[in-house]
This record gives sequence, structure tokens and C-alpha cells, in this order.
Amino acid sequence: MTLIAEKLNGSIPSCAAAIAARDESYIKDMAKRQADTGVDFIDCCASVKENELETLAWMVEAVQSVTNCPISLDSPDVDVIIGAMPLCKRPGMFNSVSGEGDKIDKAFPILAKPENSKWHIMALLCDDSGIPKTAEKRIEIFEMIMAKAAKYGIEDKRIHIDSAVEMLCTTDDGEGAFKILDVMKYIKKARPNVFISGAVSNISYNLPVRRLVNQAFAVLAIGAGMNSAVLDPLNKDLRGVILAAEAMLGLDDYCAEYVSAFREGIFV
Amino acid sequence: MTLIAEKLNGSIPSCAAAIAARDESYIKDMAKRQADTGVDFIDCCASVKENELETLAWMVEAVQSVTNCPISLDSPDVDVIIGAMPLCKRPGMFNSVSGEGDKIDKAFPILAKPENSKWHIMALLCDDSGIPKTAEKRIEIFEMIMAKAAKYGIEDKRIHIDSAVEMLCTTDDGEGAFKILDVMKYIKKARPNVFISGAVSNISYNLPVRRLVNQAFAVLAIGAGMNSAVLDPLNKDLRGVILAAEAMLGLDDYCAEYVSAFREGIFV
Repeated sequence: MTLIAEKLNGSIPSCAAAIAARDESYIKDMAKRQADTGVDFIDCCASVKENELETLAWMVEAVQSVTNCPISLDSPDVDVIIGAMPLCKRPGMFNSVSGEGDKIDKAFPILAKPENSKWHIMALLCDDSGIPKTAEKRIEIFEMIMAKAAKYGIEDKRIHIDSAVEMLCTTDDGEGAFKILDVMKYIKKARPNVFISGAVSNISYNLPVRRLVNQAFAVLAIGAGMNSAVLDPLNKDLRGVILAAEAMLGLDDYCAEYVSAFREGIFV
Repeated sequence: MTLIAEKLNGSIPSCAAAIAARDESYIKDMAKRQADTGVDFIDCCASVKENELETLAWMVEAVQSVTNCPISLDSPDVDVIIGAMPLCKRPGMFNSVSGEGDKIDKAFPILAKPENSKWHIMALLCDDSGIPKTAEKRIEIFEMIMAKAAKYGIEDKRIHIDSAVEMLCTTDDGEGAFKILDVMKYIKKARPNVFISGAVSNISYNLPVRRLVNQAFAVLAIGAGMNSAVLDPLNKDLRGVILAAEAMLGLDDYCAEYVSAFREGIFV
């Protein structure tokens, strides 16, 4: 499971306050704590209306001063991400492209360059009409993104598909989380080398005891093929259930990884 | 989800001590606490070598003095269960029969009687050779049990199949928990009215932080069709993830049951 740590995000009030105050110690401390849990990428999202590139650059510098963990450059504006890429000391995650506007046609030529060939790419299954209401339409966008990737010579194994996890509390008519789980199952079958990803905690929006909803979703999603996730790596129970679910799905013989993560204090 | 509360069991050391000392208050308190969480059955297992029927009768009386919750009479000896049935003030669970010996041919004629028609039955997928190592063999035993049920006129909707959850920590070669999940999926398809059950906490035997392993297994099992479970109803996180998983599987529109269980304090 590829883990993308989500806590350095200006949409989180405490982080927004730290960003506004240019509180470097908050950024460094959170980066370090997340990195120490063994994540693969530390997401950095400025989430500001003005001076986004400058703000993101400040975050990236602070993070890189305390950890070698690769960075996920997170912005709705691909130009901001492209602008921040040269600041990264090592290849990171381009977060994100989607079927929206000319994002892909701006980003993929940059990502296809030999010097950027180790960058991973998060691709969100939405387009100019927003996030599709059906699994079928999301799959259409997925196929379009993969066709573009082929055109630009970007390999499947660099692409993480964010299937657009939405809040569960508004679903009815037996819909549940099938839409997202079905998209994951489709991708797993159609493109086994593509990473199947998602922002786990989106599922629990507006529900009480979100951590339990997130845990249940993570397990079902892993069952459907999810092997990459944007999550809070400091949520120890979540890390534990993910490792346990992987063992149940035959990905951890004798539960060796589960037991070794336990010994390292990842989930207790 | 039909819940069978597991804490009154002589295989649990503190409960064994209470049984040996005929500590009625322990039994009553544990029965009450479990019943208060809204379970469907309270399992009573004496787990003693001598005087099992007398011991079970004492437990049943204590439980019935504090709650109207139906009782699951739990013994490896069907004669003990049959002996205890008349003590139950209301129809309960016959726990259990299996493909072993003449258990079914002793139990089913009693359970087929009109006065016992509301009793549920737990059937374990093992036979005289023990618990089968393959899903195929377990399914064979399942089909044999269902053929016997048809012969005795016992309806599918009274039968809970315990697919024999085993410890995860000894699995290798990518086996994981697929054996048990595959059996559950088979039953769901073959006999949609049969309850698919299991002793959730067996999965985590010999592993650290068992509660997280149990939670992950419960979610995967619900995804595979489990709709009945023997578990610790006082494990609030487990109850919460089960309710969350049900909502994700389209069994709880608008998460109404999840939210209402939260308000009742079932999982917080």
C-alpha cells in the first residue's frame, strides 16, 4: 500500500492558520511526525487564494528541511504544481490531473520528460462537468486519461487513480459505496499496474466517529483493489486495520508485515 | 446483522472462574451488559467436563433472571443442548450441529417439531475429520447439512452457517482469509435465505492488537455476505465498523442506522 500523508493541507483549519502565520515549526513538526510513520509521500497543499506557488514553495522547503520523504505537490492549478516541481529534491507525486480543461495536456508533456520519469501522478476521475454521479462515467474518464497517458508515453505504473471518494451519508436506494468500489474493481481488472487510490476520509464527511467509518471504508476499498491511499498516517487504528486487511487478502504471509509494523509502533 | 454475544463462555478464564464458583452476579452482570447493547442472542457455553447440563441450566436461569434476550445454547454435546432447550423461556439458538457423527440426526428431529419452529440453528462446517482445509470441502459439508435440513423440513431462514473462521497468522502462499470469504460468497449465492455466520475473533488468534484484526475481518466478511456473527458486543469499535460497513454495502440508506446507533451509545 502506497501511503500519501494528508495532514499538511490548508483546508485543515490548524494547518491553514500555520500557513497564514508562516509558522515553519508547525509544518516541520507535522512533516516529521508523518514521515516517521513510514509513509511514501507527504502531501503539501497550500489551499490559499493568492500567492499559491510562493506558499507551496515555502511549505516544500520546510518539509525538505526535516525529511527525505518524497513530496506530493497538491494543487487544483497544474501550473502551480509544474512551478513547484523543480524545488523538489527528489521525484514526488504530481497531485493532480483530471479530465478537466487542459490539465492533462499541460501536465503530461512535462511529466513525460526523461528528467521527470520517476514522478508519480495522481489523476482524479472528474471532468468539466464535475465529479460524475455514475461509475460508468468515471470509467469513461479513466479510459480517456489512460489514452492520454499512452499518447504521451507515460507508464501505467506511475499513475494513481483517485476514484473520487464521496461522503457516504447522502447515499440512498441501496447505493452505499458501490460506485467507488465498482470503479476500483474495474481498474484492477483493466489495468493491473495502475495504482488504485482515494482520499479515504472523504467517505465519513458529516458522520459521527469518522475514524470508524474511515476504517471500514479502507478495508472494503482494499478488498476492491485499492493499493494507494491519501490518509492520516497518525491514525494508528487505521494503519492497523489496513495491514490486517492486507494479510487477509493474501498480501502478507504469516502476517509478518503486520507483526513487524506492530513492533515498530506503527499502530500501537 | 444478527449478533450473538460471546462473553458468557467457560473457555474465557474469568467466566470459567465465575462458573466454578457459581458466581451468579458475574453471569447476570455480563448478560445484562451484553443485552443492553441490543444483541439478538446471548451465548451460554459452560465448557466444563462434568455436569455440563446442570451447569448450563444454572447459567440459563441466571441470564433469564435479568434479560428477555434469547439464549444461544452452546455445547459440543447436542444432548446437553436438547436437555437445556425446555428451560428457555423463549426460542433461542441451537449452537451447534455440524457434519460430525449423528449430531444432525439427533438435533433436527427435535428442531423440526412445531413447538420448536422458532429456534435458530448454528451449523458448523466440519465433520468427523475435523475442520476441512479447503473451501470446496466446507461447501460439500454445507450442501450435506442443507440436504438434511430439507429432509427434516427445516427452513433455510432458521439456519446460520458457521464457516469455521480460523486464525490468520498461520496462512501463507497468498492464502489470507480467502477460504472463509469464498465459502461465505458461495453460500450467499447458493442460499440467500441462510444466515452466514462466524466467530469473528477466531481470526486474530496469536496476533497483537486483536481488536484491529477482528475489525478488518468483520468488514471483509460483511462484504462477502456475513449477516450473523458471534462476537464481543462490548467492543464498541467493532460495532461501529460493522454498522459503517453495512452502510457502505447499501444496507443503511443515509446512514440512518449508523447515526441512530451512535446516538444510543452503541459504539461510543
